[in-house]
Amino acid sequence: MTLKMSLEELNAFMHEAFAQVADDFSVEAVAPNTVTVRLHVDARHLRPGNTVSGPSMFALADVSVYLAILAMIGPEALAVTTNCSIDFMRKPAAGVDLIARADLLKLGRVLAVGDVRVFSEGMEHPVARASLTYSIPPKVTPQV
Amino acid sequence: MTLKMSLEELNAFMHEAFAQVADDFSVEAVAPNTVTVRLHVDARHLRPGNTVSGPSMFALADVSVYLAILAMIGPEALAVTTNCSIDFMRKPAAGVDLIARADLLKLGRVLAVGDVRVFSEGMEHPVARASLTYSIPPKVTPQV
Amino acid sequence: MTLKMSLEELNAFMHEAFAQVADDFSVEAVAPNTVTVRLHVDARHLRPGNTVSGPSMFALADVSVYLAILAMIGPEALAVTTNCSIDFMRKPAAGVDLIARADLLKLGRVLAVGDVRVFSEGMEHPVARASLTYSIPPKVTPQV
Amino acid sequence: MTLKMSLEELNAFMHEAFAQVADDFSVEAVAPNTVTVRLHVDARHLRPGNTVSGPSMFALADVSVYLAILAMIGPEALAVTTNCSIDFMRKPAAGVDLIARADLLKLGRVLAVGDVRVFSEGMEHPVARASLTYSIPPKVTPQV
Repeated sequence: MTLKMSLEELNAFMHEAFAQVADDFSVEAVAPNTVTVRLHVDARHLRPGNTVSGPSMFALADVSVYLAILAMIGPEALAVTTNCSIDFMRKPAAGVDLIARADLLKLGRVLAVGDVRVFSEGMEHPVARASLTYSIPPKVTPQV
Repeated sequence: MTLKMSLEELNAFMHEAFAQVADDFSVEAVAPNTVTVRLHVDARHLRPGNTVSGPSMFALADVSVYLAILAMIGPEALAVTTNCSIDFMRKPAAGVDLIARADLLKLGRVLAVGDVRVFSEGMEHPVARASLTYSIPPKVTPQV
Repeated sequence: MTLKMSLEELNAFMHEAFAQVADDFSVEAVAPNTVTVRLHVDARHLRPGNTVSGPSMFALADVSVYLAILAMIGPEALAVTTNCSIDFMRKPAAGVDLIARADLLKLGRVLAVGDVRVFSEGMEHPVARASLTYSIPPKVTPQV
Repeated sequence: MTLKMSLEELNAFMHEAFAQVADDFSVEAVAPNTVTVRLHVDARHLRPGNTVSGPSMFALADVSVYLAILAMIGPEALAVTTNCSIDFMRKPAAGVDLIARADLLKLGRVLAVGDVRVFSEGMEHPVARASLTYSIPPKVTPQV
């Protein structure tokens, strides 16, 4: 239950592995089985009405659970999302970032399950919730 | 059960309403309760390993059901996604577009449910499946 | 945000409205937007290996969110489940009851969303998690 | 892609392995990657208003995908449901059975994904749709 990656290591890893989108996100906090990730909301994330797009919220939830897993098992793993269920419950506030809190509910040998709540910064009620399952490749398998 | 928007009208609507992402997608076919939509896969949709990113597949599934609904109820509606469940089942093939087929299973007064299968072009087995629920605002749908 | 039904009223309502299954469940706690419900695990809920069946866990999650909604809006409403996403994460312990904690994340005019974690009594980690959407009929409509 | 279990073998297996609920269901058809299963609707499946309960529809979807997997990999496997997403779209008709058609979209070494549509017998539009993921234990599936 000790962390294998620090906040700095998670942010550095994201910039190496996902250079295209790494500027969208920053990890704000990490602890065993939980991370907090910020989406720096920019024009490219918006839809008509100045609301953050569904795919942007999905991407935030997805990366948050991924980073929560890596924090626990280390950067060598190539976990892949196998399932996501997401509820969009409120319209995000205009002009503020989104903050995701991801909690790992299960970190098994083969599957991990994470739960995410996404907030417009400063708001009490979540704009979205998501659950994601990741498949974790066997340790003996060299990375693809 | 007659269409309220043609293929040309759907593509034109997408360019007006979603200028930022409209070049990513093109509607290839429309019929009552079903559309086929292409994602023109480009560098910005890729992840390490030349695979199409999860958020790009989510976006394709989301827009496909949205357009299937608009084709039936017309462009004035402001339907919003309330829920999505998506299964990522296979790694998309490198260097080919993704093709989504969306089918409306329900088009109610308040809620619509669509089912999507996403294929790498030319492949037999789907890379992903998704189900989406849209909430339809009250006044624009006087019909039952 | 005040409760419209007490613990006693919720249990009494369940026995009136769902006589067939009311003995399976008892509401153990209620507060604004949250309830705790016990499944009295019996032979009829089991599967080979003495594990609680998936449908029994689904039923527990479903009734928990339903009761959390009724506690807030009162017993006259006829809310119906429109969507459920459920993750089965661990095998329930043999010979103990299941305890569900349901939290309402949204209670809108038309839709309510609840999040549930299900535990084998006395265990730290949840055996399942679920999210459910309920459709709430318009107040002006007499009950069907 | 050949079947490892016939219609008769699937029904016999269900009676051996799930004696408690086997009378609820009968497999009506099986072919590679697809089965059709009937829920013999009885008083115990009903809710007020003579509608089939959500847990009964969940159980039908769950068993249908399970049997579709067993038909392909044989009865020795102990697959377990890890995730289900289900949409309840219409009220089932009173006094008729439910018929589920399950299609396997993926049958991998570790995970299988099935898609189900549930109909009130004789009706055109589905009352529910569901997607289920099963985890397949390692040793019983040496095949890729």
